[in-house]
Amino acid sequence: MVKWFSRKPGRIEVPRLRSRSDVAATEKVALAEFTPDILAFLGRAAYVQLKIFENLSRVIANAPTTAAKTAIGKAAELSLSKHRQLVDEITKAGGSPAEVMDPFTESVDNFERIARGADWYESLITAYLSAGFFDDFYALLAAGLPSESHSRLVAIFRGESGEKVLAEYLQAAIDANPRLDSRLAMWGRRLMGDMMLLARSALVFPDHTRTTEAQVEPVFTELIAAHTRRMDALGLTA
Amino acid sequence: MVKWFSRKPGRIEVPRLRSRSDVAATEKVALAEFTPDILAFLGRAAYVQLKIFENLSRVIANAPTTAAKTAIGKAAELSLSKHRQLVDEITKAGGSPAEVMDPFTESVDNFERIARGADWYESLITAYLSAGFFDDFYALLAAGLPSESHSRLVAIFRGESGEKVLAEYLQAAIDANPRLDSRLAMWGRRLMGDMMLLARSALVFPDHTRTTEAQVEPVFTELIAAHTRRMDALGLTA
Repeated sequence: MVKWFSRKPGRIEVPRLRSRSDVAATEKVALAEFTPDILAFLGRAAYVQLKIFENLSRVIANAPTTAAKTAIGKAAELSLSKHRQLVDEITKAGGSPAEVMDPFTESVDNFERIARGADWYESLITAYLSAGFFDDFYALLAAGLPSESHSRLVAIFRGESGEKVLAEYLQAAIDANPRLDSRLAMWGRRLMGDMMLLARSALVFPDHTRTTEAQVEPVFTELIAAHTRRMDALGLTA
Repeated sequence: MVKWFSRKPGRIEVPRLRSRSDVAATEKVALAEFTPDILAFLGRAAYVQLKIFENLSRVIANAPTTAAKTAIGKAAELSLSKHRQLVDEITKAGGSPAEVMDPFTESVDNFERIARGADWYESLITAYLSAGFFDDFYALLAAGLPSESHSRLVAIFRGESGEKVLAEYLQAAIDANPRLDSRLAMWGRRLMGDMMLLARSALVFPDHTRTTEAQVEPVFTELIAAHTRRMDALGLTA
């Protein structure tokens, strides 16, 4: 496991399986003071969601069967709807959507280029893992926003996702092709690193002491645990 | 103008600008007896809609600005929703969606490969022209279906579309690049030919006499007129 932040000895938690509600339970705790202002928050989250959609649309275009295209179409539709809801929130908060998203395009585009993978299976597992990871992350990071926005945004991030249908297609692919699992396990580990870096770049650190770093750590431990749970659901070693 | 069907002299109508409601007025008239059975109808229409989405998703991925991505995202969401509604109709009619779509994938995939164009502008005008054309065509062809399905399907095909936003981006591109209009005008003419061929292949001809061909002709004249209106809206010569 990559060592993300300086840690005191003995504080390393082994990732455990946790449900979404466990992740939600830490929501109000840890990230509030690192939350950027609302427009920066929304601009980044909306653009990440757009890139998640672009990856999903590539998964659809390259899908091996019509059934897969249609089923994954539902995930793409949910992703576009989430993007549009975030764009509406930008307007509500007084921002101009494109202007508010543009500062983040370069770093998120770079992430997406790395994350799309070399073939259909890697794009598919990226779609599955990244949608869940960023929903979790932004729901946690929203803790520092005014309470009215906070509850609306958590509802968006915790809304219906295509995770289940993507997991089903991944499972079928792994079952049909036993050599796929080690490749996808490695891909998932690498992707987690890239997602953590992108997530971390969204945080605003008031000062860069070891104390503030340590404060953020439990949240990232939660995110890793949730990622591990998603990998484990496919029988992959995180 | 390509001569689609054998015509008696003097019957050629010059395409005129017509509103959607003029097109809708011919709905019950001409195509009913050429309508395939409901599952063949739905399988083809649902798969065409999926390909319209795939083209739109390519338009989004290659869009030059974040504003364009977000705005065209709305068109893609509408297109996916239309696909999903058609898939739901397949299930209602007792079909298995993938099985019902699969006989049409080869011909529709071939169309899509030709229609996607060489660059962003050609993909964009394909998105604009093909969504309108096939909505019109399938709304007309639905006339031969049982009346309950007919009204539900017409509501789907006549539902909200991304045509307006696509026209805005095309208009802006043409205004910014005066040499684009003749290229897009030529592309639009060629595309119309390909769309007519794909549409025609959906018709079931009870017999191939000149009489039945002549019966279908007014419908295709209407479709050409609507296409001409879409081209004209951009100042392009159809």
